[in-house]
Amino acid sequence: MADRTVLILGGAQSGPSAAARVRETDERARIILIERARDLDYADSGFAYHLSGEVPALDSLRRGRGDLLQDVYRVEVRAGAEVESIDPRQRRVLVDGQPLEYTALIYAAGAESLLPEVPGLGGAGNVFHFRTLRDLEGIVRRLGTGAARRVVILGGGAGGVDAADGLLRRGCDVTILQRGPRILPRFSPAMSRVAADALVKAGGKVVTAAEVTAAEQHLSSVSALRLANGLRIETDVVIVAAGLRPRTALLRKAGASLLADGAVAVDERCETSLKGIYACGTCVALPHAVTSEPAWSTQAAQADKSAQVAAINAAGGKARMPPVTDTILLRVGDIALGRTGLTRDEAAARAGRKAAAITVHAPCRDPYLREADLVTIDIYYHRGSGRLLGAEAAGRAGVDKRLDVLATALRGGLTVDDLGGLDLAYAPAYAPARDPVNVAGTVAAAVRSGAAPALSVEDIAARPGAVTLVDVRSEPEPSAGTIPGARLVPLASLRDGLEKLPKGKLVFFCDSGQRGYLAARIARQRGRRDAGFLSGGLRSWRAAGQPVTPPVPATPPPRP
Amino acid sequence: MADRTVLILGGAQSGPSAAARVRETDERARIILIERARDLDYADSGFAYHLSGEVPALDSLRRGRGDLLQDVYRVEVRAGAEVESIDPRQRRVLVDGQPLEYTALIYAAGAESLLPEVPGLGGAGNVFHFRTLRDLEGIVRRLGTGAARRVVILGGGAGGVDAADGLLRRGCDVTILQRGPRILPRFSPAMSRVAADALVKAGGKVVTAAEVTAAEQHLSSVSALRLANGLRIETDVVIVAAGLRPRTALLRKAGASLLADGAVAVDERCETSLKGIYACGTCVALPHAVTSEPAWSTQAAQADKSAQVAAINAAGGKARMPPVTDTILLRVGDIALGRTGLTRDEAAARAGRKAAAITVHAPCRDPYLREADLVTIDIYYHRGSGRLLGAEAAGRAGVDKRLDVLATALRGGLTVDDLGGLDLAYAPAYAPARDPVNVAGTVAAAVRSGAAPALSVEDIAARPGAVTLVDVRSEPEPSAGTIPGARLVPLASLRDGLEKLPKGKLVFFCDSGQRGYLAARIARQRGRRDAGFLSGGLRSWRAAGQPVTPPVPATPPPRP
Repeated sequence: MADRTVLILGGAQSGPSAAARVRETDERARIILIERARDLDYADSGFAYHLSGEVPALDSLRRGRGDLLQDVYRVEVRAGAEVESIDPRQRRVLVDGQPLEYTALIYAAGAESLLPEVPGLGGAGNVFHFRTLRDLEGIVRRLGTGAARRVVILGGGAGGVDAADGLLRRGCDVTILQRGPRILPRFSPAMSRVAADALVKAGGKVVTAAEVTAAEQHLSSVSALRLANGLRIETDVVIVAAGLRPRTALLRKAGASLLADGAVAVDERCETSLKGIYACGTCVALPHAVTSEPAWSTQAAQADKSAQVAAINAAGGKARMPPVTDTILLRVGDIALGRTGLTRDEAAARAGRKAAAITVHAPCRDPYLREADLVTIDIYYHRGSGRLLGAEAAGRAGVDKRLDVLATALRGGLTVDDLGGLDLAYAPAYAPARDPVNVAGTVAAAVRSGAAPALSVEDIAARPGAVTLVDVRSEPEPSAGTIPGARLVPLASLRDGLEKLPKGKLVFFCDSGQRGYLAARIARQRGRRDAGFLSGGLRSWRAAGQPVTPPVPATPPPRP
Repeated sequence: MADRTVLILGGAQSGPSAAARVRETDERARIILIERARDLDYADSGFAYHLSGEVPALDSLRRGRGDLLQDVYRVEVRAGAEVESIDPRQRRVLVDGQPLEYTALIYAAGAESLLPEVPGLGGAGNVFHFRTLRDLEGIVRRLGTGAARRVVILGGGAGGVDAADGLLRRGCDVTILQRGPRILPRFSPAMSRVAADALVKAGGKVVTAAEVTAAEQHLSSVSALRLANGLRIETDVVIVAAGLRPRTALLRKAGASLLADGAVAVDERCETSLKGIYACGTCVALPHAVTSEPAWSTQAAQADKSAQVAAINAAGGKARMPPVTDTILLRVGDIALGRTGLTRDEAAARAGRKAAAITVHAPCRDPYLREADLVTIDIYYHRGSGRLLGAEAAGRAGVDKRLDVLATALRGGLTVDDLGGLDLAYAPAYAPARDPVNVAGTVAAAVRSGAAPALSVEDIAARPGAVTLVDVRSEPEPSAGTIPGARLVPLASLRDGLEKLPKGKLVFFCDSGQRGYLAARIARQRGRRDAGFLSGGLRSWRAAGQPVTPPVPATPPPRP
């Protein structure tokens, strides 16, 4: 048998990883890597860290595989070459007019940024995407000249927020313009707000419902953006992070099956509908761990995994793509924020009335230590089976760890009861004995068992006056305020104060939820079967932007 | 039906948690908590943090549930009371001579420290265990007076190492005397050495194979310890951390089934062999997630979970104890160190010849960031099924996270292939796109698939000269040295240099293992079917205390 020729289209991200893995699998294969641009194999996830100055040398973001690829992996690298077409029947591509035959082809062309249709935006020298080293170089060059420090970012998705974080650390004057009602729309509304607050705290501006109508140019640069509401924002640099699209035109022309969003459908071997053509990276849709349905992901970590699977199979080995949990993590100002599994909306769509959610705010370390910041965790689960469906987390420390545990739990098909009992690593500096994940699991399991219903902020805010809210904190801080209309009954006095509370539904709350839950359990066992608690307590209430009032002084508890 | 009386024996750790959970479950129960000592509910895991000064006020370590227990949870607390006997047939205990009836009893007496039989140790005023607030107060009082700063710790298990870490941070002159050949014997020999090195780097002394023959007393204090080898160590304070024993004498007398180590056997409801008597905390043996066999654990996080399960069942609810993975995490000098699941020896005992292990050293963050420290991960797995059996981890950052992922993976029954594909949260500041857990899983999966055998340091050190060692680093740092007798063939020259290598088994290595693995794959595909790689590379070799020599200058690679 003649040696195999493996052709890899795309050298920015997944292509070089795939090339290396092909070589590991088949020492004799001829491997050719073709990339349109001049730059090979760079870490685009690190761009914000160059903007911030944490990675001073841009060259550090090159993975430096150029030499490694040729010397160690013996890959023929053709940078600056353009593939014009793919002929899957003849197993041949046309590169710069020349035919090139392959045994297997790995398609790794990635995703491309969308440019919004704004008059005046095209052709300006200070408008950049945030995808390539050239983009990054351009941004830095513009910001390096004179006093230029105003940046407008079009788009408040993960890419825009990531760029904003890096630029704010650099000291730039950053404005995010988001078309929709909130940034990070794949997060819950409360988490979107947490992220926006963190950006504002770091000095940024976030404008939602922003419809950009025109860009004013001056000397071939955009000098200001005009919004439909009359706002005019002057700027030195515009970064367009208004969405991505899988770069799959070549595959489409070749006849491959694409999904509606343009992502290429692959099987668990990462092979497309065209025999001998594999695909990987940010242009493919991969089976989701919860739904098993193909889901397009632009996450670098997943792109890397599909590159390995595509490569092993293209090289004649055997590998199967692991299910994707769609995990994402962002650094935003002084917090980290992330999610894994189904979003809140996806969980609701999938589980219908069986979809359930709880929120906890729990210390990331033993609370007697300084810096025992709270981690906020939302978990979405199936009320019937108890199975975890998705999760979000935010906080100043320990967020990444809890997301990883939750992603692993999703992979293992664990239930909320399992989360409550997870035997996680405990030492005071790193985690409390009851880890936030344990707390979230325990609360969800208790709610599921019927111990007490958890109400969300939306449940309560949607129907003002429908329930009696009871603040059970023993010492509400005056500055913290409370929910308007709430009665104050400290937990220690609850048993005696219970009969004085009006009939109808009672919803107890405290600072973070724990004592509210306990109050609901006490009340329910004492005949108030209609009692529940506010999930996440006053912290979630405030985080959702709901109003708080100064607390009314508590009635002194009756002497026993 | 009369209200239930739940009696809880033990108020230091798990007892108060159990009491609270009984109340949550049964609002009407009478709950009585009995504790011999005066102190209730303190965080013994935080003792080292008080010694270090990180928790300045000792009172911060009291969970302050005294009032909460009585006012909110309505628990009758009887501190300083001694239970003399338990009559399981009559459901009655004798407390300070008075009978007390119960509906359900929760036994939470914990574990007690062993005192080694050393002449002169007993009765001294400066000899302490490291279990109670009184111990901690005594240690601090002694160290607070004058220039006393020399501390000898008898025992190099987790408790002794934890105490040593706190005292070293305080600036004390700390010596650990360990009877056996190494500290932390439940860790692998390499990890024990990592921990010992970290203690020494922090200014501590570690003496292994230390047989203490006598304690010299002066003014009712131990002034020096004498060892069988003639060593004499002067000291101001002695901390005895020479092992624990479940405090189960009362249960034994009452007829409960105990295991050989004295731990009480409980079912998944945490009920003992005596009906109506539940047990929790550090005196029980719980089913292990991997073996399903009962395993005694002294971990605070597990103790807390069993307290909740025992309490819910004792109060008439339903709860099942989750499987225990025996996870432990320690802070030692500038590193964290932990393990989960089966130990290396337990994995070998369970899986026999199917037991396999690999070691990786992988960056905890994207490598272009400063502080991208390496995390060392050992994973133990079953060669046949691929199932993860246990893991250890150490490093300066990110160790707790990887242990939690591995503990969750154990709970979900994941394989090493699954670990390779876990979709973990990626952002450069928190983790690389290929997380160290992914790397460990990928390497183990590749080894398991037959891509190349992984040899351990012990494999090689045990039979010097049996294999040809090949250092494939391109630029070995002169200071790093290499394995004595190793040949230097940079990876880029390997294909040309392969035929010059002697016949017989080849073992390739690099700094951490990755290029060694790749070299083995190249060599095997080029006809050297006997090629393998050193798992963990030169880092593991050095960490195991094996000798290194200055590297021999590389032969210039032949020109192509």
